[in-house]
Amino acid sequence: MSTFLAVRQVRRPSGTPVADDFTVVTEPLPALADEQVLVENVYVSVDPYMRQLMNTGEAGLEGRAIGRVVESRSPQLPVGTTVFHRRGWSTHAVADAAEVRRVHQADGVPLSAYLGVLGGTGLTAFVGLTRIARLEPGEDLFVSAAAGGVGSAAGQIARLMGAGRVIGSAGSAAKVAHLREIGFDAAFDHHDGPVAEQLTRLAPDGIDVYLDNVGGDHLAAAIAALRPHGRVAWSGAIAQYSSAPPAAPHNLADVMFKSLRVEGFLVREHLDLRERFERFLVPHVRNGSVRVSETVVDGFENLVEAFLGVLRGDNTGKMLVRVTRPVDQAEVSVLSQ
Amino acid sequence: MSTFLAVRQVRRPSGTPVADDFTVVTEPLPALADEQVLVENVYVSVDPYMRQLMNTGEAGLEGRAIGRVVESRSPQLPVGTTVFHRRGWSTHAVADAAEVRRVHQADGVPLSAYLGVLGGTGLTAFVGLTRIARLEPGEDLFVSAAAGGVGSAAGQIARLMGAGRVIGSAGSAAKVAHLREIGFDAAFDHHDGPVAEQLTRLAPDGIDVYLDNVGGDHLAAAIAALRPHGRVAWSGAIAQYSSAPPAAPHNLADVMFKSLRVEGFLVREHLDLRERFERFLVPHVRNGSVRVSETVVDGFENLVEAFLGVLRGDNTGKMLVRVTRPVDQAEVSVLSQ
Repeated sequence: MSTFLAVRQVRRPSGTPVADDFTVVTEPLPALADEQVLVENVYVSVDPYMRQLMNTGEAGLEGRAIGRVVESRSPQLPVGTTVFHRRGWSTHAVADAAEVRRVHQADGVPLSAYLGVLGGTGLTAFVGLTRIARLEPGEDLFVSAAAGGVGSAAGQIARLMGAGRVIGSAGSAAKVAHLREIGFDAAFDHHDGPVAEQLTRLAPDGIDVYLDNVGGDHLAAAIAALRPHGRVAWSGAIAQYSSAPPAAPHNLADVMFKSLRVEGFLVREHLDLRERFERFLVPHVRNGSVRVSETVVDGFENLVEAFLGVLRGDNTGKMLVRVTRPVDQAEVSVLSQ
Repeated sequence: MSTFLAVRQVRRPSGTPVADDFTVVTEPLPALADEQVLVENVYVSVDPYMRQLMNTGEAGLEGRAIGRVVESRSPQLPVGTTVFHRRGWSTHAVADAAEVRRVHQADGVPLSAYLGVLGGTGLTAFVGLTRIARLEPGEDLFVSAAAGGVGSAAGQIARLMGAGRVIGSAGSAAKVAHLREIGFDAAFDHHDGPVAEQLTRLAPDGIDVYLDNVGGDHLAAAIAALRPHGRVAWSGAIAQYSSAPPAAPHNLADVMFKSLRVEGFLVREHLDLRERFERFLVPHVRNGSVRVSETVVDGFENLVEAFLGVLRGDNTGKMLVRVTRPVDQAEVSVLSQ
């Protein structure tokens, strides 16, 4: 094999991206230099945050991926090694050894989990709940976009941390049902009525922590529901990636009046927590107490559509694209599609 | 003497309070019970935060005051003791010994300072800079309403903490000049143009910490100017006490994109810091490196007008009402009026 496929961005999306903003190109595989490896991707991640990168162009189409080393000029990474890297959105990647991270797949844990609940997605939830919001046992949590990758991880992690009530919002009745299945105490479909009213109904006594993935009216509703000294961990704003920012919350001054803390974070600045996070979560994934909630789209040719789908909220759990048939395919738990 | 004067709230103010919302009453002094003292007030504090209390009615017209014990049935508080209490807006107060706090006036420090830069006002600035924003040496600070009690204390305390540039906004050219006098590196009059433009001009490389006393367009300007990992300590919202809340910042999502932290606080929840705060600041007040920036209005009969004035921003520095002639009157530095 001397060529590979890659998705390229051909123009800056105007608002919500469309298929024509991208193209798939066939490129020759460059020869490996010293300390480089050729990776055959198994899973490629499509994430809402990438929409934002497409505006700034800073990171182009970098994306998280997991694959196998199929050619190596790095003694530390022999052929067959499973690795994580950020050169995704392609079938193969030539990477410096320093750019890739070896994945130590635990027994009984599907490989895909290392891009989802055990990857940056789950780590985002973990960082938000622990280091940013500092959720304490018995405290009540609200998660928006709760059926997404970060949200579904957050609800399950919060449960393991001894949270009180865990409440989620999602975009369909099926997702609401899924949230109940994976351990949320209560959930609502934000299409069913004003977010503030639904949250008040499900959490009449308020909440302590809000993990924000949405912004807009969800944030306003959470600010209204937060008890004094409540915290907002703000890890994303799906609603804002493509469009003009939603109206800022009318009740923002309550941050002052109720001694709230609203804190944004980027998971890449908290990678020091990854090892502890994996030690904490792997046993729970292995014994099934944490579900690997994911939507897997088959075929590299469907990658752009999968990305557009994650922006629409088509996914339940983490959205992934399977590039080739993985060795452990049978172990992968596909919840939908 | 068997009667005293007190200001009463006769109705809930509609928007900006007016004189007719209040009345001065003459009331009989009750007899002291065991463990009570009669305090003759020397200084009464008028603070923007009281406007908010007038809405909820929760605290009525409680206010901070300093006075002398003139009658005592508490052995710990003999006649002549200088005390702080929260039963202000009256010429005298009958208080339980447990409700008052003895003021240990340091040599060379004016009594009024214990309601201002050494009182709750200065403590608010100290808590905001240390415990909430965690300002570090070399970091750049922006303070709104900087010529007010909290703001003028904050700029001077930040300087003592090793802050980098200290920038303030105020509501008149005279106040801007005052800010330069007390050690601000730069200041602007928010009437001179859009806050965001003026802040960008004075802090082209951004800021690290914003101490918010205003909200609204000041908050939006600060969010725009804050560097990644910047912090907003939100101790008040003068602009919002009387009127409908101003438009929330259009750029609130930058809290997420720049990993900012916006945290509200109430000084009364951080009184454990008071002793350390006094130890830290008293020497600087005594040697003059920190100015007791205050506006003193003479005469209890002018109290309501002084309160309306502080809401208008008439004051430079902390606004106080002098009820009687204090012993150390000569030491009080009156900056204006």
